[in-house]
Amino acid sequence: MKPWSDVAATLIDVAAGRLPADTVIRGGQVVNVHTREILEGWDVAIAEGRFAYVGPDASHCVGPETQVIEAKGRFVIPGLCDAHMHIESGMLTPAEFAAAVIPHGTTTMFTDPHEIANVLGLEGVRLMHDEALIQPISIFTQMPSCAPSAPGLETTGFEITPADVTKAMSWPGIIGLGEMMNFPGVIGGDAKMLAEIAATQRAGKTVGGHYASPDLGPAFHAYAAGGPADDHEGTCEADAIARVRQGMRSMMRLGSAWYDVERQITAITEKGLDPRNFILCTDDCHSGTLVNDGHMNRVVRHAIACGCDPVVALQMATINTATHFGLERELGSITPGRRGDVILTSDLKELPVELVLARGIVVAEAGRLTCKCPHLYWPDAVTQTVRLGKVLEARNFEIKAPDGANAVEAKVIGVVENQAPTQALKRRIGVKQGLLEPEGAVCQIALVERHRKTGRVVNALVEGFGYQGKMAMASTVAHDSHHMIVVGTDREMMAAAANRLGKIGGGVTVWKDGQEIALVHLPIAGLMSDAPAHEVAAAADQMVEAMAQCGCTMNNAYMQHSLLGLVVIPELRISDLGLVDVTKFELTELIEG
Amino acid sequence: MKPWSDVAATLIDVAAGRLPADTVIRGGQVVNVHTREILEGWDVAIAEGRFAYVGPDASHCVGPETQVIEAKGRFVIPGLCDAHMHIESGMLTPAEFAAAVIPHGTTTMFTDPHEIANVLGLEGVRLMHDEALIQPISIFTQMPSCAPSAPGLETTGFEITPADVTKAMSWPGIIGLGEMMNFPGVIGGDAKMLAEIAATQRAGKTVGGHYASPDLGPAFHAYAAGGPADDHEGTCEADAIARVRQGMRSMMRLGSAWYDVERQITAITEKGLDPRNFILCTDDCHSGTLVNDGHMNRVVRHAIACGCDPVVALQMATINTATHFGLERELGSITPGRRGDVILTSDLKELPVELVLARGIVVAEAGRLTCKCPHLYWPDAVTQTVRLGKVLEARNFEIKAPDGANAVEAKVIGVVENQAPTQALKRRIGVKQGLLEPEGAVCQIALVERHRKTGRVVNALVEGFGYQGKMAMASTVAHDSHHMIVVGTDREMMAAAANRLGKIGGGVTVWKDGQEIALVHLPIAGLMSDAPAHEVAAAADQMVEAMAQCGCTMNNAYMQHSLLGLVVIPELRISDLGLVDVTKFELTELIEG
Repeated sequence: MKPWSDVAATLIDVAAGRLPADTVIRGGQVVNVHTREILEGWDVAIAEGRFAYVGPDASHCVGPETQVIEAKGRFVIPGLCDAHMHIESGMLTPAEFAAAVIPHGTTTMFTDPHEIANVLGLEGVRLMHDEALIQPISIFTQMPSCAPSAPGLETTGFEITPADVTKAMSWPGIIGLGEMMNFPGVIGGDAKMLAEIAATQRAGKTVGGHYASPDLGPAFHAYAAGGPADDHEGTCEADAIARVRQGMRSMMRLGSAWYDVERQITAITEKGLDPRNFILCTDDCHSGTLVNDGHMNRVVRHAIACGCDPVVALQMATINTATHFGLERELGSITPGRRGDVILTSDLKELPVELVLARGIVVAEAGRLTCKCPHLYWPDAVTQTVRLGKVLEARNFEIKAPDGANAVEAKVIGVVENQAPTQALKRRIGVKQGLLEPEGAVCQIALVERHRKTGRVVNALVEGFGYQGKMAMASTVAHDSHHMIVVGTDREMMAAAANRLGKIGGGVTVWKDGQEIALVHLPIAGLMSDAPAHEVAAAADQMVEAMAQCGCTMNNAYMQHSLLGLVVIPELRISDLGLVDVTKFELTELIEG
Repeated sequence: MKPWSDVAATLIDVAAGRLPADTVIRGGQVVNVHTREILEGWDVAIAEGRFAYVGPDASHCVGPETQVIEAKGRFVIPGLCDAHMHIESGMLTPAEFAAAVIPHGTTTMFTDPHEIANVLGLEGVRLMHDEALIQPISIFTQMPSCAPSAPGLETTGFEITPADVTKAMSWPGIIGLGEMMNFPGVIGGDAKMLAEIAATQRAGKTVGGHYASPDLGPAFHAYAAGGPADDHEGTCEADAIARVRQGMRSMMRLGSAWYDVERQITAITEKGLDPRNFILCTDDCHSGTLVNDGHMNRVVRHAIACGCDPVVALQMATINTATHFGLERELGSITPGRRGDVILTSDLKELPVELVLARGIVVAEAGRLTCKCPHLYWPDAVTQTVRLGKVLEARNFEIKAPDGANAVEAKVIGVVENQAPTQALKRRIGVKQGLLEPEGAVCQIALVERHRKTGRVVNALVEGFGYQGKMAMASTVAHDSHHMIVVGTDREMMAAAANRLGKIGGGVTVWKDGQEIALVHLPIAGLMSDAPAHEVAAAADQMVEAMAQCGCTMNNAYMQHSLLGLVVIPELRISDLGLVDVTKFELTELIEG
């Protein structure tokens, strides 16, 4: 869309009554997020995709061709902004993600494509960025900062360097640096991390933070001194307050599996702090959440349910976000010159999204998308990222015991219900024909290298899913390096599941008794589908059902599966380099002694 | 000073306790303008001129060489920001203005050198900009937008063009566009004004506004749609609210002659609007105000006296301002990475400024400046701007009557006590020897062209100063085109006063009975002295006293004198092109019929 400066003459003419508006919304209760007021009976006139006049009477802006929308006393609120999120978490492309969230009133997203960066490097980021830019809503890209997340403990498909960050800063849709997850690096003065931050600051853009530690002492202060401008890893009121006191913005998230708003929003609702530096975001949303529950409207509704004043909650999803990213004169409020992003809703608590305009165009009505979300042409290489280099066989998943042993003491990754950290367990595992043969609660886990055709398989043990009988499950979504993680009770089926993903280019597959019983096909980088959200959500539901059929009783078991390679969260994880002790940040042996 | 990104490694090391800070302020009540809190017993550590650690205990940042300042429970507040002001109004150079305001706790100014732009054009702006950049505090320059203010009705020394604006946007100290005074131009879609705004927006900088009209209808909305991001011309609560509702920031000013805070701040104190978009500024301060009353500390103190919460008032002079200009991560709060600009005060209502640090250096203590404010080398041309082209004589100030008339009906500029607008009066003026010879309340006024050596004198009549006996007063401060304005009862003395300023390069001179009885020497562009504020203030006091000796009884008579050429404010003014009817924006004849 044209910049304000290119259309200022038209906006002035419309406001002055010399030219008719393209669209006028008449007689609403306009929520003003600058003054924190609700202005009754106000009109909104739009031209060239931007607000031209916002005031008590726009009748002088109406011509014969003007589209007039009668608000009939409904609330007119700014389109909602998601301040930090990963599109890949929805298993959807930017286009299909946009198509899913527009009917929920999301008109702006700040997205950090760090999953695809691990698989396809800067080229993958560029493709996400390019598809984002052709959508009817505003999707800004935060340049991923940390691939690999744990240098030395894993091998990613590509690495992101300070030179990549510098290069990306000149792309039109880049708004800043994606979450600086390597917080120990920043605190320790790591030159590479500081160079990425510096490149972003020099470009005048916003440095995203990620400080995932409860320590609010000097280490936290050192991180703040390093330059990150926000953080969304806070989980309690003290976290939220500490961040804002250091001049950072506290992003409070409600994702599909993140519930960090309720415990932090008391900084505003009870402690009475100035709310301007608090922002709402989702971080990660599964397609099922988007289909069934909503997106930023869900977050704002939740904040209000937590006791937040509705207009303050809306500020946290509109102008606060815009200001944070230096966009307060471009979007985030219903005032002259800004992008014509606006929602009509009849209730300011439940926030039913009845009509959505983006850049002045009606993009959704009564929950139905009314615009196109164009797909980018994704080059073939993007759908050929599951590169095993060979056909896997059961023997690739064998774990050899020391010569002559009947049983061994082995380390086992303990998955814990509703928690991201795992436990480093020790179990006695039986040996048959020289191979470990776990039974009962323990089954096998394998990380299959898929980026560089090495065909390397790292085998280990896991407990907690509750799988029974003969099964296997494989996924190429495996944070953050996104190799393939296979969990199973049967090595033949583990090989079959892995080969299946190798053949179709990635996704999640569940096998039981020799048959595939569920598949989520994610051909783009092994992370995303280009099907619509409801199809992906249905496939994901079927996958969860299939896991249950295999005996799994955990909540969010798929998420647990996909995080078992995340070698930055304690205690025990798996990578392409081996088993990782994440309490010591070092590789460790599977079999004790 | 070095950018944050260049010193981040040091700041991190200090915050983490690996390197000692340069300075630590211990045991203060730190005012946090992000959260709107007062944090008791907090410490502040500074390194490389920036805050490195701000928290409950900085003892880990103290080394043997660290300068430790004991706050002893005093309040530690951010250095104050003046969001919009004209240095020339103090008749001081940037260096001497800085020297005058630093002891009052001002550490940042956003200054629009539009007076010198009228005299010396872009070169004059550049000199002000360059001297601003070498000061120990932060002085940002707003590129003047409107010279001349009234195209077609006056001739300035130089004109500012869109090309000038585009060029200036790349200078290091330019923060945006100075007040867009030509609001009828913006509302009318004037291509030149829109081009200046566009050049500023494209550079990602802030467009200053100036909407000096009580009309809040479509014309005001059209102005907002044109792009100005702030306005400081509001005078009542409705003005302040209207601006913020349109997504502009409302700057409320308390200058030497502006008193616009009390009537507007009720938008916050009574209407309860979100204060984040309200900002304090001075606009114009005379040197006497700086010497006797203060600067931004005076404005904040006044806001508090008007019922504003002290921390909110401080936000309006610190972080709100910084955010407005895109500098919220550079200054305006006491948080890591920001410039080490900080004040110690023992009272949050009266705001005594006891210690001032700028960029981590003690710059004032107990009202005394403790740093150098370097003077720029001003080239000779800058002190040779009163170019009369000839020696004036009494006959140049003669006003010829129509042949044979004994008396005429003439237009007279009526100066009104305490008001900027003048009245267009009609008076019967006697004629002697073919020349108008005003008597009683009416005396002569002349505008002497001083930029282009034309020697042209435009003569007219003025009433209201109350001058008696034989006197004349001349000033080269004559907004906005800054020719020379001479008022007098005696033509010989008018010529003497004008020639005096031509000889010494400008200023203000008062003559009585053939003698100069007061002089404010302003050799730089005829607008500024490079003497210290107290000397200029003393000379200005003497000038006021001299005016009283000549019979003047008005308040602010000097200001009235200097505004008589301001051909944008009704009703009758004088320019180098003639007498101007500012109700019709056209030239008019002195003698009726």
